[in-house]
Amino acid sequence: MSDTTKNPTTPDAAASKRRPNPLKMAGDDVESVRTLPPLGDSFPRSTKVTHSDLEVPFRRIELSGGEPPIEVYDTTGPQGIDPRQGLPKRRQPWIDRRLQSSDGNHSQMHYARQGIITEEMRFCALRENVEPEFVRSEVAIGRAIIPANINHPEIEPMIIGRNFLVKINANIGNSAVSSSIEEEVEKLQWSTRWGADTVMDLSTGSNIHATREWIIRNSPVPIGTVPIYQALEKVKGKVEDLNIDIFMETLEEQAQQGVDYFTIHSGVLLRYVPLTAKRVTGIVSRGGSIMAKWCMHYHKENFLYTEFERICELMKKYDVSFSLGDGLRPGSIADANDEAQFAELQTLGELTKVAWKHDVQVMIEGPGHVPMHKIKENMDIQLEVCHEAPFYTLGPLTTDIAPGYDHITSGIGAAMIGSFGCAMLCYVTPKEHLGLPNKEDVKTGVITYKIAAHAADLAKGHPGAQARDDALSKARFEFRWHDQFNLSLDPDTAREFHDETLPAEPAKDAHFCSMCGPHFCSMKLSQDVRDFAAQEEIERGMAEKAAEFREGGGDLYVSSDESAAE
Amino acid sequence: MSDTTKNPTTPDAAASKRRPNPLKMAGDDVESVRTLPPLGDSFPRSTKVTHSDLEVPFRRIELSGGEPPIEVYDTTGPQGIDPRQGLPKRRQPWIDRRLQSSDGNHSQMHYARQGIITEEMRFCALRENVEPEFVRSEVAIGRAIIPANINHPEIEPMIIGRNFLVKINANIGNSAVSSSIEEEVEKLQWSTRWGADTVMDLSTGSNIHATREWIIRNSPVPIGTVPIYQALEKVKGKVEDLNIDIFMETLEEQAQQGVDYFTIHSGVLLRYVPLTAKRVTGIVSRGGSIMAKWCMHYHKENFLYTEFERICELMKKYDVSFSLGDGLRPGSIADANDEAQFAELQTLGELTKVAWKHDVQVMIEGPGHVPMHKIKENMDIQLEVCHEAPFYTLGPLTTDIAPGYDHITSGIGAAMIGSFGCAMLCYVTPKEHLGLPNKEDVKTGVITYKIAAHAADLAKGHPGAQARDDALSKARFEFRWHDQFNLSLDPDTAREFHDETLPAEPAKDAHFCSMCGPHFCSMKLSQDVRDFAAQEEIERGMAEKAAEFREGGGDLYVSSDESAAE
Repeated sequence: MSDTTKNPTTPDAAASKRRPNPLKMAGDDVESVRTLPPLGDSFPRSTKVTHSDLEVPFRRIELSGGEPPIEVYDTTGPQGIDPRQGLPKRRQPWIDRRLQSSDGNHSQMHYARQGIITEEMRFCALRENVEPEFVRSEVAIGRAIIPANINHPEIEPMIIGRNFLVKINANIGNSAVSSSIEEEVEKLQWSTRWGADTVMDLSTGSNIHATREWIIRNSPVPIGTVPIYQALEKVKGKVEDLNIDIFMETLEEQAQQGVDYFTIHSGVLLRYVPLTAKRVTGIVSRGGSIMAKWCMHYHKENFLYTEFERICELMKKYDVSFSLGDGLRPGSIADANDEAQFAELQTLGELTKVAWKHDVQVMIEGPGHVPMHKIKENMDIQLEVCHEAPFYTLGPLTTDIAPGYDHITSGIGAAMIGSFGCAMLCYVTPKEHLGLPNKEDVKTGVITYKIAAHAADLAKGHPGAQARDDALSKARFEFRWHDQFNLSLDPDTAREFHDETLPAEPAKDAHFCSMCGPHFCSMKLSQDVRDFAAQEEIERGMAEKAAEFREGGGDLYVSSDESAAE
Repeated sequence: MSDTTKNPTTPDAAASKRRPNPLKMAGDDVESVRTLPPLGDSFPRSTKVTHSDLEVPFRRIELSGGEPPIEVYDTTGPQGIDPRQGLPKRRQPWIDRRLQSSDGNHSQMHYARQGIITEEMRFCALRENVEPEFVRSEVAIGRAIIPANINHPEIEPMIIGRNFLVKINANIGNSAVSSSIEEEVEKLQWSTRWGADTVMDLSTGSNIHATREWIIRNSPVPIGTVPIYQALEKVKGKVEDLNIDIFMETLEEQAQQGVDYFTIHSGVLLRYVPLTAKRVTGIVSRGGSIMAKWCMHYHKENFLYTEFERICELMKKYDVSFSLGDGLRPGSIADANDEAQFAELQTLGELTKVAWKHDVQVMIEGPGHVPMHKIKENMDIQLEVCHEAPFYTLGPLTTDIAPGYDHITSGIGAAMIGSFGCAMLCYVTPKEHLGLPNKEDVKTGVITYKIAAHAADLAKGHPGAQARDDALSKARFEFRWHDQFNLSLDPDTAREFHDETLPAEPAKDAHFCSMCGPHFCSMKLSQDVRDFAAQEEIERGMAEKAAEFREGGGDLYVSSDESAAE
């Protein structure tokens, strides 16, 4: 395993020659671009390192006090690159090599089922600290997916499945009402900086194609979209003008650009729609409500269901993964776990089998709003009816009464469903239900969901997950304040909070803090207790030796660990 | 049941005559006091109402669109009163009446066991919407407590037990390093405004007595303290100078002032202390580490254990409740559910029986830091070994890696343990481990814990708990934006967030929002779907009638619900 602290920055020359710079084409009007402050500003004493010939990235956190460094999973991607250039296309040679001997199906599942371990699988294995063969077998049976469009060579592959680290998704994207391309690229970089494993571009406004191009070319993580949004733009918002051809054209356009997974609401069947009529909050999924309206308008079956195999044919060409949308998910506590929701889930299970017939990767979207006591049922039923395809939920929110804090109402549900086996958690920001998230909201949402995902990893006993908790707690106990900050999910905020009451630099080595002051420090007292205990153990040891000595008839004894007792 | 919208503001004249104004005595130097903005600023369209002769407070939220108002549990206490005066002493006549026929034991448990339903029990019953007899029986068997010192007549009684609404506690208090009396009173009022059910004054600095006096006289909720802190101040921070006499003197002083519950670390036994020596974070409870150090210093048993019955004798005179402290609670994920923790819990269970022998009310404190999969075990063991005495936990934090966000890491654990039966959740603010909370942190901590408690109430199926969720979700679906804000835990923040993208007042009635814009509104589409469905139902109804008509041989039919089908 090679190990280098340099960032890989050499794009594949051949690949970049082959295609014109799409950012130029898409965003000619974008003159200046913002760049984030350097990574080191957010993560002091961290360096990016890579392992193996695949250059799998980790972030190494250096510690003081003679403690070994800790390496953590890293989603930040190559740094300091002009967004107008886009990220280096590191997967390009892997993809090119495979395309030469291709049968037209380029999905990771297709390779996995042939027993082939791709570079993407090896990459994921290294990131997750498991064997490549395990990754292959999980992908082959559909229990995990590696969303990796062959036209998105910029990504650092990642895996979504319940036998791996729990992942989180951040939603970005502008609407007709708000936000620019520049802001969206910044949100993308900002969300991967704090730990987003995938990003969904939910843009619905103008410039939908260009925004997406900028996002994909600058994203080190898989990008998901909901293509029906763009299809609806194409028919000027008239639901009744939608049809499978416009939809397929949209899919092709987005697949060409490199979208890694598509949310498609194929499970909203005509006969399920009336089941939502008596709900408190009807249909809250945008895609779900669009398809429901279409079904009701024509009194015909959803074309995303009837033409599902046609969609599969396209998906496998590019290796776009399905994220089968839960168009009928509950939008309130009152509507949780109802007939409409579970009827749709059943259909998503059927469609999973169809997609798998084509070796197309699938994950299943889930709710939404669910009270705590109904969360486990969601996971159990999903595993059963969807044949263990990865589950990808939005929260769920465990109460409706806290708009402004829905990152928290949903973080609770997310942590729980993650611990029960949910593979990816779609973040919810404080702005949920109220407005579009700004940069600060994106960060809060991502950090909250990293907490939920990590809490779930601990609960599932993911090997090695606790190492960071232990290192941080040890630093805390030993008053290594900077280490405590640097090991945390958000060093900036931790240090800032400490500065508020004890700003002086010497306080960062102080063996007390503002909470208790020097006299009431449990850590200090606890250290005294530990010293007492150690002293006692020595004394007990001595007494035992003395007894031994007496029993032995008073001869001098020789102990092998004598020096250890000093 | 009487019903008035006036706040009760008449203090009991006799009672206020009987005692000199302690705030004058304690805080002569306090010239000006801050006052919070009026309640209406925080909760638009809310009015305080009271029910029954006991004047049990609720906050009534008026709604638009012909919806009935919602009444919610209210902890805010009488408003607009000069802190130098203190709150009216509403319990005084109840207490005075009982003192006349007293046997020296004034605990609610003592009355309950004699079959007496006190005013405090009736008050709690009205707040919780249960029968007074149920309250009495839960208190009698120790499954619930009503912390209510006879010298704290200002409180609006509340009940802590797992068959009632889950409660939350907010910690305030200054340390040697930071904060003034004035700030602490403001934090008290601020935390009850947002929903704190009890408040602990953890002051350790100078002015410890005066700070407490100001807090108690201005608190509508029970106040808890950790008396060993003041005892340690009395011996100038020298742990080895502590003894039972200094401790009893401190208890008497605080009980006289009106503290409603005492955290006492009687379970930190000499033989348990060495069990903590190998921990990652030793002993993190301040009280626990003080007593551990004392035990180790003298190599003698904890005097809070050996003299426990002497403490009980004092507690029952004033009706101070025990909050048996978990001095050996884990301070990190690594130390969760270890031998030290559960050994102490066992001892707390023994002591519960001793306290109950004296009819002294008891709750049990719990962790701390616990990964999700070990939370239920905590609750189950506590119920078993502590004979169903109410459990009162700090969080627990479900991971150690997010200092700065420990309201969230712990909110997850709090919601879970609440759903398993924990009766009260001690809040954790974003400043936990880093510094003392300011006013904004207190609010964030309280709101986060209201979310956790409410999510747990929903999960436990507490009757009526879901009404507020349903009302809010209905308002959301019907675009009654102001109703949505006003029904939320924090209307200010919800409105502010909405204003950020759509500030204009007409947007508050708009049938869309900034997230999706007018064309992509699932709520709007869902309404269309609902209209379709209704239309279909009508058509189906017509078809059935037509079929009936044909089957009936073509005679005109008469339907009883004909008009309903219009």
